[in-house]
Order: sequence, then C-alpha cells, then structure tokens
Amino acid sequence: MLPYQNKTLTINERTSDLLGRMTLKEKVGQVNQHLYGWKCYKKDQDGVKLTDYFKQHVKWGGGIGALYGVLRADPWSGVNFDNGVTGQEAHDLIQLMRDYVVNHSRLGIPPLFSEECPHGHQGLNGVSYPTNIGKGNSFDTALMTEMAGLQAKELRNLGINLALVSTLDLAKDPRWGRTEECFGEDPMLSAQFSQAIVNGFQGHLIQENVDFGAAPVPSTTEQDGHIGVVLKHFIAQGEVLGGHNSGSVSMGAREFKEVYTPLFNAVKNAAGVMVAYNDIDGVPCHANASLLTSLRHRYQFQGLLMSDGTALDRLAQLYDSPKQAIIAALNAGVDLSLWDNVYTQIADNFDTNMSAALDRAVSHVLRIKFLLGLFDNPFPSFHPTQDETQKLNHQISTESITLLKNDPAVLPLNRQKKVLVVGPNANAFYNLLGDYTAPQTVEFMTKTPLASIRAAFDTADYALGCEIRDRSNSAGLIQEAVTKAANADVIIAFLGGSSTREFNLKFLDNGAVSSKGINMDSGENVDLASLALGGAQNQLIQALEKTGKPIVTVLIEGRPHSLKYVLPASAAVITAWYPGQQGGNAIVDVLTGKVDPSGRLSMTYPKNSGQLPVYYYQRDAPKNEDYYDLSGSPEFPFGYGLHYGKINYSNLTVSLSANTILGSVQVSNRSNHVIHESTLIFVKLFGGTVIQRRDMLKAFVRNTLPANSTQEVVFSLPLGQVKYIDLNGDWTLPDALELRVDNLTKTVQL
Amino acid sequence: MLPYQNKTLTINERTSDLLGRMTLKEKVGQVNQHLYGWKCYKKDQDGVKLTDYFKQHVKWGGGIGALYGVLRADPWSGVNFDNGVTGQEAHDLIQLMRDYVVNHSRLGIPPLFSEECPHGHQGLNGVSYPTNIGKGNSFDTALMTEMAGLQAKELRNLGINLALVSTLDLAKDPRWGRTEECFGEDPMLSAQFSQAIVNGFQGHLIQENVDFGAAPVPSTTEQDGHIGVVLKHFIAQGEVLGGHNSGSVSMGAREFKEVYTPLFNAVKNAAGVMVAYNDIDGVPCHANASLLTSLRHRYQFQGLLMSDGTALDRLAQLYDSPKQAIIAALNAGVDLSLWDNVYTQIADNFDTNMSAALDRAVSHVLRIKFLLGLFDNPFPSFHPTQDETQKLNHQISTESITLLKNDPAVLPLNRQKKVLVVGPNANAFYNLLGDYTAPQTVEFMTKTPLASIRAAFDTADYALGCEIRDRSNSAGLIQEAVTKAANADVIIAFLGGSSTREFNLKFLDNGAVSSKGINMDSGENVDLASLALGGAQNQLIQALEKTGKPIVTVLIEGRPHSLKYVLPASAAVITAWYPGQQGGNAIVDVLTGKVDPSGRLSMTYPKNSGQLPVYYYQRDAPKNEDYYDLSGSPEFPFGYGLHYGKINYSNLTVSLSANTILGSVQVSNRSNHVIHESTLIFVKLFGGTVIQRRDMLKAFVRNTLPANSTQEVVFSLPLGQVKYIDLNGDWTLPDALELRVDNLTKTVQL
Repeated sequence: MLPYQNKTLTINERTSDLLGRMTLKEKVGQVNQHLYGWKCYKKDQDGVKLTDYFKQHVKWGGGIGALYGVLRADPWSGVNFDNGVTGQEAHDLIQLMRDYVVNHSRLGIPPLFSEECPHGHQGLNGVSYPTNIGKGNSFDTALMTEMAGLQAKELRNLGINLALVSTLDLAKDPRWGRTEECFGEDPMLSAQFSQAIVNGFQGHLIQENVDFGAAPVPSTTEQDGHIGVVLKHFIAQGEVLGGHNSGSVSMGAREFKEVYTPLFNAVKNAAGVMVAYNDIDGVPCHANASLLTSLRHRYQFQGLLMSDGTALDRLAQLYDSPKQAIIAALNAGVDLSLWDNVYTQIADNFDTNMSAALDRAVSHVLRIKFLLGLFDNPFPSFHPTQDETQKLNHQISTESITLLKNDPAVLPLNRQKKVLVVGPNANAFYNLLGDYTAPQTVEFMTKTPLASIRAAFDTADYALGCEIRDRSNSAGLIQEAVTKAANADVIIAFLGGSSTREFNLKFLDNGAVSSKGINMDSGENVDLASLALGGAQNQLIQALEKTGKPIVTVLIEGRPHSLKYVLPASAAVITAWYPGQQGGNAIVDVLTGKVDPSGRLSMTYPKNSGQLPVYYYQRDAPKNEDYYDLSGSPEFPFGYGLHYGKINYSNLTVSLSANTILGSVQVSNRSNHVIHESTLIFVKLFGGTVIQRRDMLKAFVRNTLPANSTQEVVFSLPLGQVKYIDLNGDWTLPDALELRVDNLTKTVQL
Repeated sequence: MLPYQNKTLTINERTSDLLGRMTLKEKVGQVNQHLYGWKCYKKDQDGVKLTDYFKQHVKWGGGIGALYGVLRADPWSGVNFDNGVTGQEAHDLIQLMRDYVVNHSRLGIPPLFSEECPHGHQGLNGVSYPTNIGKGNSFDTALMTEMAGLQAKELRNLGINLALVSTLDLAKDPRWGRTEECFGEDPMLSAQFSQAIVNGFQGHLIQENVDFGAAPVPSTTEQDGHIGVVLKHFIAQGEVLGGHNSGSVSMGAREFKEVYTPLFNAVKNAAGVMVAYNDIDGVPCHANASLLTSLRHRYQFQGLLMSDGTALDRLAQLYDSPKQAIIAALNAGVDLSLWDNVYTQIADNFDTNMSAALDRAVSHVLRIKFLLGLFDNPFPSFHPTQDETQKLNHQISTESITLLKNDPAVLPLNRQKKVLVVGPNANAFYNLLGDYTAPQTVEFMTKTPLASIRAAFDTADYALGCEIRDRSNSAGLIQEAVTKAANADVIIAFLGGSSTREFNLKFLDNGAVSSKGINMDSGENVDLASLALGGAQNQLIQALEKTGKPIVTVLIEGRPHSLKYVLPASAAVITAWYPGQQGGNAIVDVLTGKVDPSGRLSMTYPKNSGQLPVYYYQRDAPKNEDYYDLSGSPEFPFGYGLHYGKINYSNLTVSLSANTILGSVQVSNRSNHVIHESTLIFVKLFGGTVIQRRDMLKAFVRNTLPANSTQEVVFSLPLGQVKYIDLNGDWTLPDALELRVDNLTKTVQL
C-alpha cells in the first residue's frame, strides 16, 4: 500500500504523496472539468453505454478531475425522459463512470461528479423547490439547512459529490435575468442562507479554523449522507452595469468590502466556490489574484475554486495567447475548469514557472476528493427520495409567499366562493419552476395552481385570459375571461413571468439561452429593460377590473414586475415567486387561510426600471430623492409583507453589554390566526467620515405566534457586526447607532 | 507702505505678509462666501442701496472673502428687470460694494465677486449661449475659447472677478436633470473644452508649471480683459446612482482614475474649482483630503477650492458637531465656503490645530485676489457688450445642432414651402435657454423659432399642438394642429423639454428647484425616471403622422428623450438642444440649408431609460448585450450626426514615431454644400490584465470642407494618451491598439 492509499494518514499527507507521484499530464487531467456530462453516455434500446467522447477524455487526462452534469436534463442538454436516466439507472451510470475513470487512471484517482442544484437537482425526477428569490422571503435559515440536507441525500443516493448552488449573488438590479437565483438584495440574509446551505449539504465536513487536511478521511458514518457544495458565484455578479448578464462591475473598494464581507465569511466552509463571470473594476474575477487569494488566506477558505462555464476561454480573449490566460488563472487561484479549452492546454504551454501554481490547484482538487471519501468509502447505494422531501418542499413554498395587498380584506377566501381562475400562470406547471429546471413527469405537469384550486374550491371556472408575452390572440382571450367573470364571486388572476425553456431554443456554450422563446421573461441571459408585465397581462387585469368583481392577483415571477395596473385593479395581491413543484398547493393553502402568509420581501420591489437602483442599503446621501415624473420610493420596501392578522411590536429594549448589543421586543399576534412572523432588526449608523447607509439588516428571528399571543423576541448583535468601512478601508465602530424593529427605534451611543 | 501693498513684490511675498497681519476673525472672513449677493442691495425709487444684511456681514468678517451672485437674476433670487440692476448701474453697484468692503476692512482687503456663468452670465441682459450639452456637439474648442473670452469681457465690464462655469460633469445618466450642463459623456472632450474655457476666461493668468505667486501682480494691460474661472463640479457628479441629483457615486478606483484623469489635468490652470456635492465611494468630496490634495499637489492646481452651495452644512449633518465638519473641510482643502453656516463658525470652534489649514485656505483666497489685481489695478470701467457677442452666439448655436435623421431627404427646406409650425417649443423663447437663466428682455422674448421661421419662409402657419407636459387641453390642441396641417407642404414640429423656471416656484437653499412647474422636465433637481417626451407630444406627432404630410421634428431639449414615436413619424429629426438666445435663427439657418448641420452627438442617445447606462466607453466585457425586450444598442451612438452632403473617409494611415502615433486620413465632401466636419479619432486597446473599453475618443479635428473637396486630416497621439490603468493602478501601454476613424481601422502594435 502506498502512503496515499493509507486511510490512517492525514489528507494532507496523502495528497502530498499522491501529488508527488503524478505526471504533468495527470496533473492537468485533475484540474479539468471539461466535458458536458450528459454527452458521456448514450442510452438506447440496448441500455446505457459510455461514449467515446468520455473515454477519449479519460485517456487524454490519465483520469479526470471532475465531471459536470452527467445527470443534467433540460432543453440545452437535450436530455429528457426518453433518452435520460433516472433513479437506480442513474446511480449505476455514475458508478460505471467512476469505475471506468479509476480503472483508466494509473494512480486510481476517482473523479468528482458535480451537478446543478440551484433550487433542486436539475436532473430527471429531481425535487424542484422554490427558486431562491422566493426562499429569501421566508427568512428561515433552519428550513434552508433542512432542505440542503435532503438535497445532499438525494444527490448522494445517485453517487454525486458536489452540488452547484447559487447563493452568493445579490439581486440589486431586477433587470438582470438571474435575479430569480438570488435570495434577494441583502448581503447578511444571503450570507446566513449560504451558511445554512453549507451546513445542510456538508454537515461537519469542513469546520472553521480546523484544517480538514490535518485529519484522516472521515468515514461514511462520519459523512452521514453529506456531500460537498459549490457556492456560486464569487462575486458581485448582481452588480452588473445595466443588468446585462455577466457584464462589468464598477464598484468602489469601500462599498465592495462593506457589502460583500459577509459573503466572504459565509463561503469559507464550502467545499468549493464558483468564480463569477464579471469583472470588478475591470479585473475579471477569474484573473483576480488579490480577490481569490484573500478568500483563501484571509478567510481561510479550504475548498476548491471552480471556474464558471467557458469563463477561462473568455479570459483568453483578453490576452495575446492562451498561455497568458493559463498563467493568470492559475496564479489567481482557479483550481478547476468548467468546459473551457484553456485548462486543457496547460501541458502544451507549460513552463516550470507554472509548476507551483499547478501543484497547488491539483492539491486543492485532490484534498476535496479525499475529504469526500472518494478514495476510501464504498460507493453509496441507491435509495429513492423520501416522502418527507416533498412535504418540506411544500412548506418552503408556503413560507416563500408574500402578501402585498389585501384591501379590502378579500383574503382568505372561503372555499364556497365561486372562483374564476384566469391568467397565463394558472395552468402552466413548468412556469412554477424557474430556470435550471429538468423536464417534469407527466404526473407533475398536471399539478398546476388551477388543479389545486379546483381540488379546494367547490366551484372553479377557468379562462387563460392571455399569454405571458405573446399577444396574438389576446383580444379573444380577454373577452372570454371577462365573459366568464360574470358568473364568479371572485377572480383569481395568475400573472407574472416565466423562465420556461423549450426544447426548440438555442443556447450558448455555457447553457444560457441565446434564442428567445415568445413566452419567457426571466432566467440566465433573459435580461429585461422594462419590468412591465408582458403581453396583454395589463390589458387583461384592466378588463377584469371593469367587471367589478373582486380580483386576487397571484404573481408567479422570477423578478419584480411593475404593478402599476395590477395594484389598483386587485383587492389582494400575493407574489409566490417561482414556488416550485408544490407551488399550486402552497398558494391554495395561503388563499384559503389554511396557512397565514409569512413572507417578507427580501428585495426592494420597484415601481419600474426607470427608478433603479432601489436596493434599500444605499448610502444616505442628501440627494434629490424623487424624480420629477415618479416617486423615488419603490412600490414596496425591503422587508414588506402582510399577514391575515395584525402583528404589533412594542417595548423595544436595547442595552450594551461588553462587546454585544442585547435587545428584545414584544411581538403580539392580535388575530385568531397562527402567524409566523419574521422579526427584522435594522441598524443605522451615525458618525464617521463616510456617508452611512440609510438602513442595514443586522439580524432576523422567525417565530410562530399562536392566535392572540405575545412573545418576547430577543436578539444580540456583536459590535463587530455594526462596524463600517472607514476612510482608510478599515472596519470602525460608529459613534452611535439607531436600532429599528418595525416602527420602533432605539439609539445606542458607542 | 506695508509689504503686502508693494506692487513690486511677488504675490507670495505679499500674501505671506498680509496673512501675518490678520486676526482670526479677519481670516475667517476671507474663507467665507456666505451671502446671497442679490440680497446685498435694494433698488427702489430712490436708487440702489446696500442692505444691512450685507453691512453686518462685512462687519462680522472684518471684510469679506467673496460675494456670490450680486447680479444673479432668476425666479430663485426673485430678481427681475423691475428690482434688479443692469449695465452701468450694475457696474456701479459692484464698485460701491467693493469700496464698502475695502473701507470696512482694517487691512483694506477687497472681496471677490463671483457670478454664475454656466452658459452665459446669469444676470439681467447677460448673453445666453447654448447650454453645454449642445456646445459639446460642436467639437469646436477654438469657438469655446472665443466665447469664454467674450464672457470674460462681459463680466469684467461689470466688475466681476470669478465666473462659475460647469465644465467637469459627465453626462452618463440622462435621467439626471443637470445633464444639460455637461458637454457630454466623454472625459477627453470635456477636458479639452474645460481647458479652452480656462484659456478664454483667463488668458495667461495662470500657466502650467509656473507658480503665479512667484511673480508680481500682472498689470491691467497684462490681464487684457481676462478674469478668473471656477470650474465645476469636482468631481464625478454625473455618476450619481439612479440619476438622483447630488447622490452617491460608487465607482471603482481604477475606473475613476482612468475616466477622470483628463479632467484633473484640465482644471490645473483654473483660478478655482467648485467641489461637488456627491460622495465617491462613501466619502463626500468636500471632506475628501486625498482627492483634493492630489489635485493641488500632484496636478499642481494653484487656484482656490470653493465649496458648493450649503455643501458644508450637508457635511455637518454627518458629524456630531460643526467643529468636525470644519476640521474635515479645512483639512481636505476647501478654501472658500458658499452660503453654508459651517465656515462662519470657525472662530467659535477654533483650536490651534486648525491654524495651519486655515492659513492655507486664506492664502489661497488672497493669492487669487492678488492675481486678479484686486489690490492694485483700477476698477474696470463699464462698456456695453459688443455686437460680435451675439454673432458668435449665433455661430455656436448653429454648430450645436445635430441632424439625426433625413430620410427621405426633406431637408434643407425651400423657403417657398408652405410650412406649418407646431409644438410647445416653437413659440417659447425662454424654453431655448436652459436652467440657470436670467429673465429676458421683452425684445428677446419675441425671438422664437416661430418668429425666425416666419421671417424666413413665405408662408408659415402655427398651432401650439400641445404643452411640454400639461395635457389639460391636448385633444383640442392636437385637433387644431391636424386641421391646419391640411394646408401645409411640410410640418415643422418643435418638441422636447424645458428647463424654464417660473417666479411662482419654490427653491431649496442652494437654488435647486423644489416645487415642480407643470411644463418643465430638466434642470437641477428635475431628474426623470422616464425619458419619454412629456405630455401629449407623442400623441401629437402620431396624429400629425396620419396627415401624410412630411414632418421635420426639431428637438429643443436639455437631455435625450425617447424618440420611439418621433423617429418613424418624422422624415427629418434634428436636435438643437437648448440653443440659446440665437436658437431660432440658427435653427432656420440649418432648416433652410444656409448652414450645413455639423453637430455630432457628444453623448450616447438612449432608446429609453430602461437600457441605461449606455455611455460608449464601457469596458468590453463578454456580456449579454441585448435585453430580451429591447436592443442593448442606443438609439444613436456617441459621435452620430448627419450632414446634408455625403462625407467620405479614406486612406487612413498610421505610423509610430518615437513616443507618438502619427495618423492621417482623407476626408472628402462629395456634395455641393460647404460642410464642417468633426473628425473623431477613436482608439481601442488590446492586451493587459484588465478588460479594455470598447472604444475611447482620443482626438478630434474640426475642418471646413468646401463643396466637392478633399482634405487630409492629420493627427498625433502621444503614447501617454493611449495608456490604461493596470491591475496595480498604474498607467500602462497596451500590447496593441486599434485606431478608428469613421469605419476605417488600423492596428498598431506597441
């Protein structure tokens, strides 16, 4: 037995030994994640076979670093239930590929299998949860950990090692098509959700201030069903100019440090982070040595740095030669490629100056392979996804729903009401799911909001009303809806957007859509200039308004839309965002009052794109707040969200103890409903030589309040969390701060 | 005779001597420009008298640092032809005030008189030129110098010492209401125009690399009619978030240095610069020591740093005490206040640690007073403004006009055509002038575009058509215009916006409008969320389109507007921006072909505000260029502008000689018109570790091409001007560059 095969040695010892035995070719193989995984197999009547595309690459690299998306299924990959694999067959394919790689690697190095998991595994039969923009509204970190734990099990059952999960992007310009992938605009919320997700996926695999390499590989038992998570994207991708996907970020160093430090802290225990496409102040993240080095050294990130799809090829366009791109990326600290050609050319362009950087990258990859037990632990056996998963999915969906208007209080609806269901999102299951979604089973495709309403209400008629954007038949469709409204007590209008990709679309080599489907308005590369509701939706709601029937509008959307016509026309408005596979049931639970709506907006909801940016934590400069032609205030502020009952806050107390601000507040539920209330604690700083922000979320506590009950919510803020970046770029305590909960404030002198 | 009174000594010697004799109170007096100048006098039937407001302040300060806007006339000051002063009377008032201050100052220190001069002196009978956003389209630096020279004479005739002129702001977000005050979005153009204006106002008063303080005071002859100019605003005010006036700028240090360095260089010979309201990356410019110190030391700026109106009071809101604001501003290098209370409180808050900074500020003020001859030279005598001034104004106005569309070629118009003139800007003289404009004489108020057209064409009917924004009578007005169109050969529609302030509006304490007039849409604090043409203008143009008559649209505007309906409806479109007092005549010159339109857009003209920002020199990141619902391309690119004849470029040659790129190109005028062509030389850089910009203007040459002629345009670019800011923040040569003129390109390897 060679040292690297010896389970009793530490990961660092084994990595070092293995690295010392590797040829240049083998090292280059380990830093490549070059293949489109779904092209590595072919399924036909004879069963599943490995392709030459795969085998040749294994041969080329003397093994393989990582394999992306073997199980990915979607219009880009072209994988569907006819040609793709599921369940046991999928598990066996991964095992077959793993064995093939190990057997064709001189040193027996297994590959990492990575899969997209932005809101659930993007494979056939993957559980599709609400997209992040909705989950952010729940302010429920415990639920995120639970969800990630189940996702880890789901993927581990298939033999997958790394889940790629969007958690780091901030939704600061809703024109950006990837807004749906963000938990919202707030760095602290996104950081806490990121950490919750790392905890759920990874358990204790990587712990702060503990070098995982200094210990032997954890056993299967110790791993306890966990896998590695790769958080994306690192970093500041939501700041892109004009909302153009993967564009330029020009952001001051002070602003950057203050806003993004929570996210640097949040990723340090992740098995990996994916580097972002954008540049920051002109420097592409993939070539930004100070950015990536600071993550590894200052924040002691121990995982691997994965590039985004073909990002290194984009980097190569900047330079005179691929060699310069290789040097820039290796020196910056990019450990593992994704689909690009640049890292496949390392050996051809090798000189000994690259040696240390390449060895460092390889060792980062190998350490994660050891950590995840790939060398030692038995390949997991397959277990079907548990029932509890869809139950949890249903709960997350419910918690993602935010009530924006209920005046006069038309909600909750009595099940005896005669309802007319209208709108392009009423009966379109796939529209509930967001971008990065696999084809759905025939069974799921029937589980639309309309179906859920029909199951819940005695009488429910339906009219399409209009399409998401296509106007070709809108006059007739609107007329049909208006006619049917005559017989209804209440109209439930499902409006909004869609990230649905069709199998006839075209895609870029990184999977972003390049041709545009007529009825989509969100997702990667579907950036919008206008946030107006598409197609004839505004005409539909105005026509329905004229019927005089009360309208409940349910928005299914991946980003905020202008509600200029919806708000005055509707008695009640809720946004369910993209609520996932259980969205129809969750919406009905809220509409009928089975569950109180508990979401609070995790991003500021603008009136339209002319007033952008509206994110709430802008500096409090003494500026012209309003436009001549429009208020500068958004439609709804960050944290906005109604309940069916009235919540009352009182008795905010604050004291300073050692290095911590201790606070408490009384929260009263003065209704007959059970209410889940997320209490948000904001802070405004005073003093210093820079302009402080208007507001900054510093803590949140989610509580369940029984009907007619009062609870005390306590919270503590370490002083380290209320500092700001001063003139010199250092964290400094303010002279004073104002703490705000709901409309209560207390000033603390520091 | 005391040393400071000795003309043969140097300015530095005299300043030093005088400073040594001053009390704290007198020093504080010298750094204050506290008063609203128009409140310092009162004119009634008995003549012009100085007010107690003025006298008490002189007593308080033992003299006075500077007096702002004694002659300012506008709705904010409330000064008009009834209660204000003009000509000889204005001159005599200034002299009276000067003498009063000198006689009530122990050491006989005269005050500086400063006046707004954004597009001409903002006093009664001031010459009102086109606003900067139009002048930028001329690309004519020589004309700018000539204009500034005449403005200097105009102000010097009245006894004014400092003209406040906007030249430094870049129009990067046209939602910003002060877009009209910018020469456009390009830093190089704005820098060259700034220098031209300094040259015109100041002549050789301050020269690069020569300490003006090391010489004695120039004689009146040497001053040759020149005065000092205070350029504003320093700096980056056009980058404000969301286009909100005086808001926050979050800009990367690399981006900032690369974009704004030309403007740092451009201000170094100015007698003063006004510090900008905005912060940069959280630090207010007024407290930004590294920013202001770098201007003085690295760029050897020798003038005075003036704060913007009440900006120091805004600064004080950041701090616990006014004392901290005083310390911050003095240490940053703010020499002279404007209207704020903070600098009046220096003595009350004085401690000896402030001493050096206060002395430095006082000496900067005194040095400028010496330089401008205030201590020595006789007070100028009054001369009326020369005729040549309005002739030049006419020329500038003509050169500011840009032809955006002429298809089918309806322009130039034959004077025998029966024209119908319509639109809210056809017969509204004051709308031609922009913000910061004094009331106009009755005579001028008749010189509208309609009047000029009536004078030039045989038959010209008129209908208002609609108001700028007020829709109250729009149906009837549109109908009237449509009816009259039946008798016309061609319709000339004057659309656009207006910065007109009425005397019934309300203003902030810095003069920015706070209440909104129904028919304005531009100017300070009139920021827009939508760039759509206001009121019923789009309905008017669509109704006129249906008449089938050819439409020539003339835009009078302070910022780009969405031309979604104008472009398809119009055979020809020109923008005259705010063309000034000679606008009517200039527009007719262009419409009739007396002069070829020669303007080229100095800012990118967007389709609407949803696609902002669109400024052309963004980094060339490999991003998603187009929105799903709108092209990412603007309506018209930077530099766009048509002629009546065809210009052809050929034979671009480029060579590298020592440290200079030498180039030449053939420009041919293939028409029977005289054409004034601005040849723009763009550069795109390649190589380096940052993402380079798509394009960058590096030179421009304006030439007159006789009919059917060809000229060779030669240009040279020092290599120092084609560098970029690299990873380390240093200026670096690229590996190569592509030079572009029109559609010709040449690559240069470096």
